[in-house]
This record gives sequence, C-alpha cells and structure tokens, in this order.
Amino acid sequence: MKINENFKDLEESYLFSAISKKVNQYTAENPDKSVIRLGIGDVTLPLVPAVTEAMRRAVSEMGAAATFRGYGEEQGYAFLRQAVCGYYGKKGVALSGDEVFISDGAKSDLGNILDIFSTDNTVCIPDPVYPVYVDTNIMAGRKIKYAQGNADNAFLPLPRSGLKADIIYLCSPNNPTGAVYSEPQLKVWVDHALATGAVILFDAAYESFVRDSALPTSIFQIEGAKKCAIEFCSLSKTAGFTGTRCGYTVVPHELIRGGTPLNKLWLRRQTTKFNGVPYVIQRGAEAVFTDTGPDQVKKNIDYYLKNARIISDTLTGLGFWLTGGKNAPYIWLKCPGNMSSWEFFDFLLREAGVVGTPGAGFGANGEGYFRLTAFSSRENTLEAMERISVSGGRFS
Amino acid sequence: MKINENFKDLEESYLFSAISKKVNQYTAENPDKSVIRLGIGDVTLPLVPAVTEAMRRAVSEMGAAATFRGYGEEQGYAFLRQAVCGYYGKKGVALSGDEVFISDGAKSDLGNILDIFSTDNTVCIPDPVYPVYVDTNIMAGRKIKYAQGNADNAFLPLPRSGLKADIIYLCSPNNPTGAVYSEPQLKVWVDHALATGAVILFDAAYESFVRDSALPTSIFQIEGAKKCAIEFCSLSKTAGFTGTRCGYTVVPHELIRGGTPLNKLWLRRQTTKFNGVPYVIQRGAEAVFTDTGPDQVKKNIDYYLKNARIISDTLTGLGFWLTGGKNAPYIWLKCPGNMSSWEFFDFLLREAGVVGTPGAGFGANGEGYFRLTAFSSRENTLEAMERISVSGGRFS
Repeated sequence: MKINENFKDLEESYLFSAISKKVNQYTAENPDKSVIRLGIGDVTLPLVPAVTEAMRRAVSEMGAAATFRGYGEEQGYAFLRQAVCGYYGKKGVALSGDEVFISDGAKSDLGNILDIFSTDNTVCIPDPVYPVYVDTNIMAGRKIKYAQGNADNAFLPLPRSGLKADIIYLCSPNNPTGAVYSEPQLKVWVDHALATGAVILFDAAYESFVRDSALPTSIFQIEGAKKCAIEFCSLSKTAGFTGTRCGYTVVPHELIRGGTPLNKLWLRRQTTKFNGVPYVIQRGAEAVFTDTGPDQVKKNIDYYLKNARIISDTLTGLGFWLTGGKNAPYIWLKCPGNMSSWEFFDFLLREAGVVGTPGAGFGANGEGYFRLTAFSSRENTLEAMERISVSGGRFS
Repeated sequence: MKINENFKDLEESYLFSAISKKVNQYTAENPDKSVIRLGIGDVTLPLVPAVTEAMRRAVSEMGAAATFRGYGEEQGYAFLRQAVCGYYGKKGVALSGDEVFISDGAKSDLGNILDIFSTDNTVCIPDPVYPVYVDTNIMAGRKIKYAQGNADNAFLPLPRSGLKADIIYLCSPNNPTGAVYSEPQLKVWVDHALATGAVILFDAAYESFVRDSALPTSIFQIEGAKKCAIEFCSLSKTAGFTGTRCGYTVVPHELIRGGTPLNKLWLRRQTTKFNGVPYVIQRGAEAVFTDTGPDQVKKNIDYYLKNARIISDTLTGLGFWLTGGKNAPYIWLKCPGNMSSWEFFDFLLREAGVVGTPGAGFGANGEGYFRLTAFSSRENTLEAMERISVSGGRFS
C-alpha cells in the first residue's frame, strides 16, 4: 500500500489561520476597538428572491410523488444547460447544450478536470493566483511553470517567448489582483495555445463583475478559443451561491487533442465520478438566468462594485498603487513604504483596525502586495476607508 | 499536450442504452401491452416531510441577511457531522466529528478517494459489482484483480489464499446481488487487510435495508476495522436522496499508512478540490437523523423491503435460485434453463412485459444472472410477479 507521495510536496496553508490568530490577539488586547474585515472572499448579501422562490417550489416538487425527481443526468438538467447557453448567446458565444456541464462549483471542476490530462504534462500558472491551481497539480505530480505577474505588466502576464506548457491557467477578472485581460491580451494567449497545442483552463468565476463592454467576459469571445480552451464559471459570486454550490464548465466540441474530443473525455469523467447537482439547487441556478433573476443578481453585484469603487478611489487618492477595483470585487495594492505583506497586515490592523489578506499568500510575486475585497457591507467599507484615510499620513 | 491515455482502456457502457433500445422496440411492436420496469436502481418515493420542511426552512434562512450562509467547511457543517456520529453511536461505533466527511454522494467519494493513493497500487474488486469501482481505477491506470463472486459462495467472496492487493473494495449489502456479508465473513476481510496492510474501501450505501440485527451495517462494527478501512455511505437509498445528493465518508484517525494518517490526506484533498455540500441540502440530511426523520424514512425502506420480499418469495416459489431480497433492495436470480443474461432479458420482456437488468452488465461473473429491484410501486411489483407466475411454466 502506497499513499500518493505527491501530497508531501504540498505546502501547509497557514494563511487564513495565521490571519485569524493575529486578529484574535488584537481583539483580546483591544477589547474596545471594532475590527472591520475586508479580507474575506465570501459574499455577504443573501440569495435573491427569484432564487429562493425557485428553490422553494423545487423542494415542494421533491416532496410529492407526482413531481419527485431521482437521479438526473450527471452533466445537469437540460433546463439549466439551456439557460446557460442563453446567457452565452447574449455574449455573442453560441454553445450547444452538451458543451455545458453543470457542476457544484468552479473549484471542484478546476481540480477534477485534471483527470482527463496526462500527469506527464507541464502546466503554466500565473503568480500570484488562487492557490488551488498549484495544489491540485502538485497532488498529481505535474511540472509547474509560472507566468510572472508584477507591477510592470499590471499583473496581466502574457506568454514569454518560447514558453512550453501543455496546460495554461488564466483567471480574469483575477483573484487576487482584480486585473482583467483585454481582448487583444487574451488573443495573445489564445494564439499561443493554438500554435503550441496547449489547452487553456480559463477561470471566469468573476465575469459578472465586468461592466466595461470592451472587456471580454468569456474566453470564447476570442477567435479560435473554442479550439484551445475550457471555461469554468460559478454562481458563487454572480448570485451569492458560495454556500449553495453551483457552477458550470464549458468544453467545446471543437477542442480535440490526440484525436480525442475533450468534451467526450470530460463527459466520461463526470458520468463515472460525479452524480450531478441537486435538483433543488439547479432550479435555483436556473432562476439566476431567467425572468427577474438577472436584474436581482445584478443589483447585488452593483452593490459590491460600488464598494470596490469606494475602496479604489480612496486608496488611489491616498497615493497607493493598485490594480482591480473596477470590473472586479478585488483591490490589489502595493504595500506602502516597502513594507512586506505581513508587515502591512500588522500595520493596518494596528492603525486602522482593518483586516485584509497578505499578498504573499497567493504566490511569491504577491510579496509586498495586499488584497482588499468588496464583499463587506457599505457601512463597514466606508468606515474602513475613513479609518485608513485618517491614518493615511502614517503610511509613508 | 497529452490526454490521459488510460481513458482509452475504458469500455463503453452500453448497458442502459441497450436496455432502453430493446424496450422502445417492444413497446412500438406491442402498443397495447404495458411494460413494468423492475430494472431501475433509483428510488421512486418522494422526500419525507421532515426533510422537505428542513430544506424549506434552510431556503428561507438563505434568503435573509441575518441568517444567510456563505462558504461552509468543505468537510460539512458540524451539525450534520454530529448527527452522523449519533447515528453511528446507535450502531455501537464511536466516531469523532472530524472522522466524518459530508459529501455529495458515495459515487463521488468512491472515485475521488483514489487521489490519496499511489497509482502504483493494485486493487481488488468483487465481480459482479457496481461498475464505478472498475472504471475509476482504469482511469488512473491501476492494476485490477477480481474477487470471484459466484453461486458457490452465494456471491460473497472471501480473500483467496495469498491475495496481494493494496486496496480492496467491498459492497454490503451488495449491488447488484443483494447479498450481505455476515460479521464472521467481514472479519476475514478485516484480518486479511490488517495482516497485509491493505486498505478496505467499504461501500455501505444500502446499509439501511439491513433488518437482521445479526448482520453488520458498518465495517467499523468489526474489531480492528478502524485500522484498515474507509466507509462510504449515502442518503440516496436511505432517504430518497438520489436527486438531492448527500452522503458521508468515514476515515478513522487510526487508519495510518506510510506514517501518514489517511484522514489528514483526505481532508487536504477535499479542502483543495471540493467546496462542500449546499447548506440547504445539509439541513435536509440532518433531518434524516433527527426527530421524526428516522421513523419517516424507515417507513419508506419498509415499503421497498416488502416489495423485495414479494419478489423473492414469488421467484423462490417458482424454483428460481437467488440471492438478496432480504436486507437489500436487490434480487439477483440465476437465469432459468441456462439462458444468458440477455436471452432472459428478451424472454422476460416478451413473455411478461417486465424489464430487469442483465447481470452481464455488472462483470464477467454476472453472465447467466439477472437483477430485479424493489424500487417500483407495490402495484407494479405485484402485477409483475403475477405476470411472471402466469408465464412461469414456460421458463424451463
């Protein structure tokens, strides 16, 4: 019996436990001071009425013999796959229902998709980035290269000359930097993948925050992408589904490697190792795309985007260098005075009682940077900016 | 870019599409005859009121700011893990909450658990069996041995002398044979695993159908099992959750291989590649274990068990050799007159208008056998048995 020894190469993730420990210590020592958390990557607004009504109806259906549903298709009910196709249609992307796979979230599919690729492939992952891309590939023993994000490229790296990678991760709008690739920039990646045979895994979990119509919200808006990309999307941030769990993955029929359509491989993977998303949840997800649902969820995103704007305007006014804050729920700032990520964490907590996330937690290139998020309440966001403005003079 | 070439070793599964094609042809040619389906492995009774009420309350919580829930712990809410511990406590198995992992179903976890083991391991899988054990290991390129189930061992194989396997699958009550291991029999497997260092993956998806108190419903009722087994369970059949998706996996702290607790590896796998089960579903699952829930779901299982008894009594009376039908929702019969599985399928459809599942679909040893299930309505079950009894004389 051998365990998967690759697990030993994983680094323990102390990021959020270390934050929690520091915050607890601060509150114990400063019982009179309130702490505002702008570090969380979780939504705070409740599910919209269109979604809860659809779920309530579905629960009733499941409780009655005539309307009860047992096993559904692993790849999701046709009603939801069609709703997703309709959503893509409005973006100018034509998909057929069997190119869409309903999932329990982008995180699961971003990890599970690796089952269809050889462990002998080399992957290219941006740095800084969502740590799951790195860890899932370490578990499988794949060789990892990094695409270097930094201030020079505004944390939107392009393929360096001669890049050899079989699988390329892109996340736009990016977590943690909030940076969004333009159409010409994504075209460079797509052309690279088409030229080298690489497959792009495109994480579009934050696409609904894009309001600049010139920016792509799907990689399939880029010519040729259907021949080289898989797209992962989620309702977690789009519709507050972080605790409700539903997303979707698009594997175009045109995407063929080694003579095999990847759509067929993914279908086989999912029918063998997954049993679909709960019917009640799929009805809730359908409501995100139909009738009054889209307007209701848009209002919530507007709310978060206004928080993001308040944060980025305040920090820009104070002289911070930052990315994100527009078309994204994240603000990624350069720590002032050459502070390290953790030094700035301590400083911000001590001086303003504000908690953020040290950039070092998202990769080597995150050192010296810091992430704030737009998911807090308006009141807390305004209060946090007020406190930071007051203590602004002490930053330099 | 290389795809996972192991996928090419998977056999296409034509079982259910072949059944569907034959049934469609029959109904087209016999528009006046009704077909009764005793082939399905899916439940038909709706969710019980305790479950739908809990889910309705949870939906309301998710729609209100004060009670909304975002990300939960990947391994499940403490309230549900504690409810599962309470359920095990009644079986005489003491578990701590962090030995229980809530999942979206046994199928997902039975596949995903393989991530924590080296692909260099040899697995031992019973034949006949649920095809997912075989396919998930073919995908990972593991070497497979089979434990031969047959009439001589009543489809309850024990380890043959000198068996060398690192991972051993057991399913009891068994799908498709309905056979249930006794405590002494399971002890043989546990002792074998303890002696060889193998890990048993115990699929207990049908444990709630066991009514004979002498039969084990958990492998952890066997002495020593916590040092050599992982148990997978599901609410799919226990509480009609096939379309609602919730199960649980137990990885005891005592289970250590290569110096590493497997509980720690599985926790790391799940926190990296899974984001938990929907809050609404976990509240529904909690209701299965608390207050009026257990009595309500027991009534449904009683209903299916009575169907199973009706089928097995009828067939036994007609002289069929069979396993299952007691303590299981499946009846596994030897095809009469040396018919093959598919010959008997055609015969039963033509003579009685009854649809079952050819045993050949569950492995080489299933040839010449046939699965009927107890998940149809009482009315249809009785009618099917009536038709089979009438045509009984033609079987030999």
